[in-house]
Amino acid sequence: MMESNETIVALATPQGVGAIGVIRLSGPNSVNILAKVFSKNISKAESHTAHFGQIREGKRVIDEVLATLFLNGKSYTGEEVVEVSCHGSQYILQDVIRLFLEHGATAAKPGEFTLRAFLNGKLDLSQAEAVADLIASNSEAAHKVAMQQMRGGFSDQIKKLRADLIHFASMVELELDFGEEDVEFANRDELKALIWKIHIVIQALVTSFKSGNVIKNGVPVVIAGKPNAGKSTLLNALLNEEKALVTEIAGTTRDVIEDEVIWNGVVFRFIDTAGIRETKDLVESLGVKKTLEKMREAAIVCYLFDASNIDASELETIVSALKQDVEKTNSELILVANKADQLSEEKKAYLKSKYAPIFLSAKEKSNLIELENHIIDLVNLGKVGEQDVVITNSRHYQALTSANEALMRAYNGLSSGLSGDLLAADIRQSLFHLGEITGEVTTDDLLENIFSKFCIGK
Amino acid sequence: MMESNETIVALATPQGVGAIGVIRLSGPNSVNILAKVFSKNISKAESHTAHFGQIREGKRVIDEVLATLFLNGKSYTGEEVVEVSCHGSQYILQDVIRLFLEHGATAAKPGEFTLRAFLNGKLDLSQAEAVADLIASNSEAAHKVAMQQMRGGFSDQIKKLRADLIHFASMVELELDFGEEDVEFANRDELKALIWKIHIVIQALVTSFKSGNVIKNGVPVVIAGKPNAGKSTLLNALLNEEKALVTEIAGTTRDVIEDEVIWNGVVFRFIDTAGIRETKDLVESLGVKKTLEKMREAAIVCYLFDASNIDASELETIVSALKQDVEKTNSELILVANKADQLSEEKKAYLKSKYAPIFLSAKEKSNLIELENHIIDLVNLGKVGEQDVVITNSRHYQALTSANEALMRAYNGLSSGLSGDLLAADIRQSLFHLGEITGEVTTDDLLENIFSKFCIGK
Repeated sequence: MMESNETIVALATPQGVGAIGVIRLSGPNSVNILAKVFSKNISKAESHTAHFGQIREGKRVIDEVLATLFLNGKSYTGEEVVEVSCHGSQYILQDVIRLFLEHGATAAKPGEFTLRAFLNGKLDLSQAEAVADLIASNSEAAHKVAMQQMRGGFSDQIKKLRADLIHFASMVELELDFGEEDVEFANRDELKALIWKIHIVIQALVTSFKSGNVIKNGVPVVIAGKPNAGKSTLLNALLNEEKALVTEIAGTTRDVIEDEVIWNGVVFRFIDTAGIRETKDLVESLGVKKTLEKMREAAIVCYLFDASNIDASELETIVSALKQDVEKTNSELILVANKADQLSEEKKAYLKSKYAPIFLSAKEKSNLIELENHIIDLVNLGKVGEQDVVITNSRHYQALTSANEALMRAYNGLSSGLSGDLLAADIRQSLFHLGEITGEVTTDDLLENIFSKFCIGK
Repeated sequence: MMESNETIVALATPQGVGAIGVIRLSGPNSVNILAKVFSKNISKAESHTAHFGQIREGKRVIDEVLATLFLNGKSYTGEEVVEVSCHGSQYILQDVIRLFLEHGATAAKPGEFTLRAFLNGKLDLSQAEAVADLIASNSEAAHKVAMQQMRGGFSDQIKKLRADLIHFASMVELELDFGEEDVEFANRDELKALIWKIHIVIQALVTSFKSGNVIKNGVPVVIAGKPNAGKSTLLNALLNEEKALVTEIAGTTRDVIEDEVIWNGVVFRFIDTAGIRETKDLVESLGVKKTLEKMREAAIVCYLFDASNIDASELETIVSALKQDVEKTNSELILVANKADQLSEEKKAYLKSKYAPIFLSAKEKSNLIELENHIIDLVNLGKVGEQDVVITNSRHYQALTSANEALMRAYNGLSSGLSGDLLAADIRQSLFHLGEITGEVTTDDLLENIFSKFCIGK
């Protein structure tokens, strides 16, 4: 993966019909390769200049293009880069790439441009990962955290923690060199205070992962309920109001349909499910099994019932089962009394005192806003500010958790008078995991794993 | 459509996921609008330079981008142009466009960038149309004719014909100014020779439309035959060999499936059809009606029959019906004897002498290459050279046909001593139609009609 003597090439813009498409070359021969097929002499061109000319194969003109040069490492990858802006025909783009390959370029692997940027020190690892998140961001909140991470807010914090810890680690290691002499270069109280300080910061980052993950992947909301409770009507009513922002995602099964809506800059993924039958049949039915699986993935479960036609004991059974369920999965339950417009005041008062549901009519589209606001409040992401650091990446979450565990072992060891070598091992472990995040510690496998998930051309 | 005081903005790259997306501004305020939201001072930047910086809304960073400036009309549109290369997130691209709109840009209409290029004299009309063809080109041949047209080969020819004709037209018009004096400034013999010369050129262009259209839209090949003759097997065999190049197009009906293959740089659209039943049932069956419709659109009809199991008189009836049919529609007929591996030499000799079909076995994939070569030969596009001018646009075809008709009226008029004013009217008519092609004569409706078919951003 590290053959950066090669000059790589790939299409940088999406496949499809557009006015233009951009092909990117990166590596030591970028300009040379272009020069072989370009109608203009660019041997004395300066960095960051754009040149209009033809891409030719012999006498055949493949396209009239605009080529922009980035020299002396002043580029995204930190290498010599050429961007060629062609007419947006798939035939032309493929043909130009073919021509570059024939003149010595190599087809770029997924994420290879960004990998090179990382290897050349243009980005650290968490910033590189943020580039992929930024491209995938489809809401204001997701964009905000990805941009924050790409601009290095998160990395800076981790690097600072790590630098502080390295100082003490080297002191403890130095003690070990003196062997039996029982000297203490590292002040134990200061070390304990530092570890606790780092622990507090890591703890906050770990906690932020819950909302960070929700920002990145959307908040899964399951709408559950018996058949004919009005689930699909409710879903349509909620989504229709925001039609322009709705995209339909093909569900994994015919019975589970997902739709997205953006409220308050956050993506909510609504999941319509096969109706839940009577509780005793729950496990038997395959369709309902899927519903339950979906409910387990959900951050919010909306249980919808037909308030005009309830069976009090059945409702009680279901609600208490659901309450146990959301407790186990750490999700939120919202009870929704549908067809509330057909309800007597008496019955309404009874339901209100017993379950405090949200009363609405999906069919009449009445009081939907209360449900919408309630869902937004439950997620409560309004608090994520421009400068707040939020973890959105499960790799970072794992590394932070592991770093914290090692730190806590060191902390407890300090209290119980742990020997210097064991203390040093714990601190080293913690440094290792923190370094994994920014890429100060890395392996080929790790890089392969991260960058292979990128798109080609990035 | 002509408000070029406005600065327009649009996404120039395809929708979808990619490493980057490019937003284009064109018009007098392009640089000013960028400057309002860009982190770098670009007030003294030179043309054709690229600048790395941030797009900001207040303190909020929307993206880190590369902005390339094209000043003093040295651009695609002939106006001041800015291209902003963003991270390829739909959210970011939409947000940056929104920001430009809020700072005074106007959303570009389809084709508006190219329309401006035309209005500013950067391209003539036929070149502008070629840009759309170039973007849509999906084969070597289609690319070649579009590129040829965009580079002005066709326009130059038309402009030259028109200039010659204008000279004579003005002479004839001058005669009219002298009214009753019966002078002849325009030598009638020279005029007649010129008109005939122009007629020959136009005639060649009109004739080239047949192959030009085929190059642009692909060659429709219908595979017809009775049920179980092996049509689908043959189609699969032909297409499987070229799997990488095959794209399946959703047919207009379930019974008609289209697949594309590129042979010799030309796209062939293979059309599988519902089996043709006995001739007497032909018209009755709806499925077969569709087959016949498709056959009428086809440039080539392959009639496939099971050679191992023929009914001699039925085959004779079908073949003679087909021969009449292709004669009427000016298409080509290929007879294909399938299952030839199961054929006695005697029977083969009989079929060969009577119909000279191509013998093959679709199932065994034997001798398919003969069919492939025969199809390629029939289209015979190998002769279209790099410099040959080919008409691919039905608007041009119509204009040339009309210009030719008017010319022929003038030509015949010259022979029969037509009066100067009628002669002048015919020549003017011809000039008008030739001018329509390059845009020397144009109307808002015509421009609207042409450019509204472009994609937005081009």
